[in-house]
Amino acid sequence: MFEVLAENLLGRIGRLKTRSGRVAETPLFLPVINPVTQDVPASWMKKELGAEAVITNAYIISRRLREEALRTGVHALLDFDGMVMTDSGGYQILEYGEVEASPEEIAELQEEIGSDIAVPLDVPTGLSGREKAEETVEKTLRNLQATLSFLEKRGERRCLWAAPIQGGIHLDLLQSCARKEKEMSFDLFALGSPTPLMEGYRFDKLFKMIYAARSAIGFGKPLHLFGAGHPMIFPFIVALGADMFDSASYYLYAKDDRYMTEYGTIRVDKLDYLPCYCPICSRIDAGELRKLERGERVKLLAMHNLYVCFEEIRRIKQAIRDGRLMELLELRARCHPSLYQGFVEIMRDGDLLRAMEEHTPISSRRGINIYDGLSLRRPEIALGRRRLLQNCFTGRRHEGKALLLPETLRVSFEKASRIPEDLDMLFYGSPYGLIPLGLRYSYPFSQTNYPKTLLDECLDDLIEEAVKQLKAAGYSKVLIVAARSKALERFGRELARRLRELEIEVEEVEDIRELMKGRK
Amino acid sequence: MFEVLAENLLGRIGRLKTRSGRVAETPLFLPVINPVTQDVPASWMKKELGAEAVITNAYIISRRLREEALRTGVHALLDFDGMVMTDSGGYQILEYGEVEASPEEIAELQEEIGSDIAVPLDVPTGLSGREKAEETVEKTLRNLQATLSFLEKRGERRCLWAAPIQGGIHLDLLQSCARKEKEMSFDLFALGSPTPLMEGYRFDKLFKMIYAARSAIGFGKPLHLFGAGHPMIFPFIVALGADMFDSASYYLYAKDDRYMTEYGTIRVDKLDYLPCYCPICSRIDAGELRKLERGERVKLLAMHNLYVCFEEIRRIKQAIRDGRLMELLELRARCHPSLYQGFVEIMRDGDLLRAMEEHTPISSRRGINIYDGLSLRRPEIALGRRRLLQNCFTGRRHEGKALLLPETLRVSFEKASRIPEDLDMLFYGSPYGLIPLGLRYSYPFSQTNYPKTLLDECLDDLIEEAVKQLKAAGYSKVLIVAARSKALERFGRELARRLRELEIEVEEVEDIRELMKGRK
Repeated sequence: MFEVLAENLLGRIGRLKTRSGRVAETPLFLPVINPVTQDVPASWMKKELGAEAVITNAYIISRRLREEALRTGVHALLDFDGMVMTDSGGYQILEYGEVEASPEEIAELQEEIGSDIAVPLDVPTGLSGREKAEETVEKTLRNLQATLSFLEKRGERRCLWAAPIQGGIHLDLLQSCARKEKEMSFDLFALGSPTPLMEGYRFDKLFKMIYAARSAIGFGKPLHLFGAGHPMIFPFIVALGADMFDSASYYLYAKDDRYMTEYGTIRVDKLDYLPCYCPICSRIDAGELRKLERGERVKLLAMHNLYVCFEEIRRIKQAIRDGRLMELLELRARCHPSLYQGFVEIMRDGDLLRAMEEHTPISSRRGINIYDGLSLRRPEIALGRRRLLQNCFTGRRHEGKALLLPETLRVSFEKASRIPEDLDMLFYGSPYGLIPLGLRYSYPFSQTNYPKTLLDECLDDLIEEAVKQLKAAGYSKVLIVAARSKALERFGRELARRLRELEIEVEEVEDIRELMKGRK
Repeated sequence: MFEVLAENLLGRIGRLKTRSGRVAETPLFLPVINPVTQDVPASWMKKELGAEAVITNAYIISRRLREEALRTGVHALLDFDGMVMTDSGGYQILEYGEVEASPEEIAELQEEIGSDIAVPLDVPTGLSGREKAEETVEKTLRNLQATLSFLEKRGERRCLWAAPIQGGIHLDLLQSCARKEKEMSFDLFALGSPTPLMEGYRFDKLFKMIYAARSAIGFGKPLHLFGAGHPMIFPFIVALGADMFDSASYYLYAKDDRYMTEYGTIRVDKLDYLPCYCPICSRIDAGELRKLERGERVKLLAMHNLYVCFEEIRRIKQAIRDGRLMELLELRARCHPSLYQGFVEIMRDGDLLRAMEEHTPISSRRGINIYDGLSLRRPEIALGRRRLLQNCFTGRRHEGKALLLPETLRVSFEKASRIPEDLDMLFYGSPYGLIPLGLRYSYPFSQTNYPKTLLDECLDDLIEEAVKQLKAAGYSKVLIVAARSKALERFGRELARRLRELEIEVEEVEDIRELMKGRK
């Protein structure tokens, strides 16, 4: 039913197959379709965007289009032959207080109309306080039990069934809800996301919810996120473990005359140019867009916004394949200070980073880009440093000496062979600390790009790593060959100072040739 | 001839009008057209991309298409009725050693074929060492004199004439060349950019060259940059003062099977998805692209690459109008560590930042986004801080007391009126330092977005700014009201500690209500 094809951080490319035999690739973005108005037709989304799936609302169908849906099925109703997910009406409870339907009725409808993915009637937590939140979790779990009993009695399932995870920002409640659902017979999970968080740009809280849900349910089944909002957060929610998400933002923004870009939103009245060449924006300019009759403008804006969303999904997928999802997060973190804050909190969460490390391949077909102290915390660096420490330094204790060379220095085989054997050649200036000669050209050390400015912006961190390595090896003496470049030279000097503080014997050497055999 | 319509940093939206009456808006990207092969036709660029200008090579025309060009003019030759710039063959000198043409011949040809913008035959510096560089500058200046004498004898000019600035990475030479050219009768300037810098990702050096050229020629006339390369650097070269630039990269990358994105380049054999919905990528997927016959693939790739370049130009223009060019630099700095390094060096260049400050409007229709210590150096912050210091703090010396309140605290008019008059209410936690009550909701203070993490990442900087303000005002005592949030609370505590170190009297207050009149 769900197969993971590639991983990076907690994001993955997956292949989802429904009971109806429909297949889609994750990360999967499901545009919300209003079954009554179909403001942008689902068939257009399939044809022009290559949309593999959409989501619509079973409760609205049951109130407004019940007979037709039962007669034709939901795919014909929407004129969409891709994957159709139906939400249960929980959102309507959140917005309007309650719905006039039982879990059994909603479940039966979804099975009858042939939804590919169905959601039991849940009771969303939203931004409720703790007491109310507990209540919504209990009610949701009760509804899930009722739904499962109903389905069992009914016999074979046609839909994949997604368990809605509630609890909101109360992460312990959310996790306990998810753990209980994990023991039930659901096919996937769907995290209720409090829309007000998104509206208030509290992305940090949303990110924590996603990781809390993912770590509670494990990595086997897909996790859907309800209401993912603006595309600039898509890379984050994928990197934190969401495989699928829906959003109506493309249309809600359009109705509000807001033009999406991959890096933020611009109000149509402030648009002088359309910074896009999607098929919509290739045909029209900003002035013409503004002058369109409102209905037409909303429609074209919604279509443009959809192109932006789908484009971001493609970027994310390509980034996962390339092992470059972190690079995309670095970019998107600078789309808004609130996203940056969320990013910083991700990069400070040791648990999460370790989980990301476990799910990030140890080699990648494209290089790793490091920018600053934050990027130094990324999984590949942590892993690379740990492996170096364990395999090349710890317990070495051969009482030999370390010869530290600037990383910019080229050392030919001939030159290296003239260095006395009791000197271990190590290169300084790398984000990983000191790199032994033999590993210098291997992954990830030689595939890691970093700016020279790292040496001054992160001096302390890099020096501490080198000190840790030298101490673990137990060298009796450290020789440091001076560098030509200012930044590296300063680094060498600071490292020498720090080692002397620790009462490790240090000798500063002007030129590597001074040490070569046959010269003395 | 050139009119500046909007400015942000050293970038501007301008209106360029040629002697032939053609008009184009800057920043202006001119795709390089090979007049013989026209791999992507100039007419297609006009129709599909809205290209207002292209550049072609007068030397190649003189060797291969001379008669036709003289007969029909360069616009008919290219089938392009927009603005046509012609380069002189200097690039061929750089690549092949010399050209078989005199400055006068090349100048005459450009006038005769009706180029809108012409370039005298120059002698590019490339990455030459100092001695060779001096020679190229001398030869270039001699050629320029010869060209001007020729043009004077000839009578009225048809072309705008651009003075090529040489000197390469030898910035003093480059500036002395530019200053001499400034005294000559040229209409615009064109900076010779050493392509090897771009190929070696030495963007920092390129950026310094652009600013050196711009500051030498002043701000009145347009500056063109030869060979701008990848679109991810466009925002930087615009922000540093280039109004126009050409590039053949769209085609050179395509020939090398490289697919441009606004954030970097991906080799076609590593593309699993096309992260783009331009009219090319909407019609084809990555697998199909790879399987195309080579000629067709190169053409479609070149077209896609052009869409990416033009899209970035639109983003830049919109950003200038919005006062958001710095936001675009923050994003693009994370496209590659070399760009980040170039960005850091921009943000550490006091001279450049002051120049940017002078050319950045003091108000903007969209907010200012701050991320970290680097963003704190941006012009709006420097200006905001200076104005605060001068107008609200310096020389105040009223021997009154300062009441420091956390910036998250809401203070109603009624509450404020109950604070004793000898207490100046100032809010702490802002990137600008302390904000007086009366300025709290005015630009730029309330339009500046920043993450909470700024308070710990930049604690020292923010505290020093506050101390500077308090000392400038000469308050006899400082009262600090504690904050609820952890980050702000720590800030208040650290500020109190620092003030005590400086022997300024500090009182820490738990709750603002303790100070209210009528309560005591």
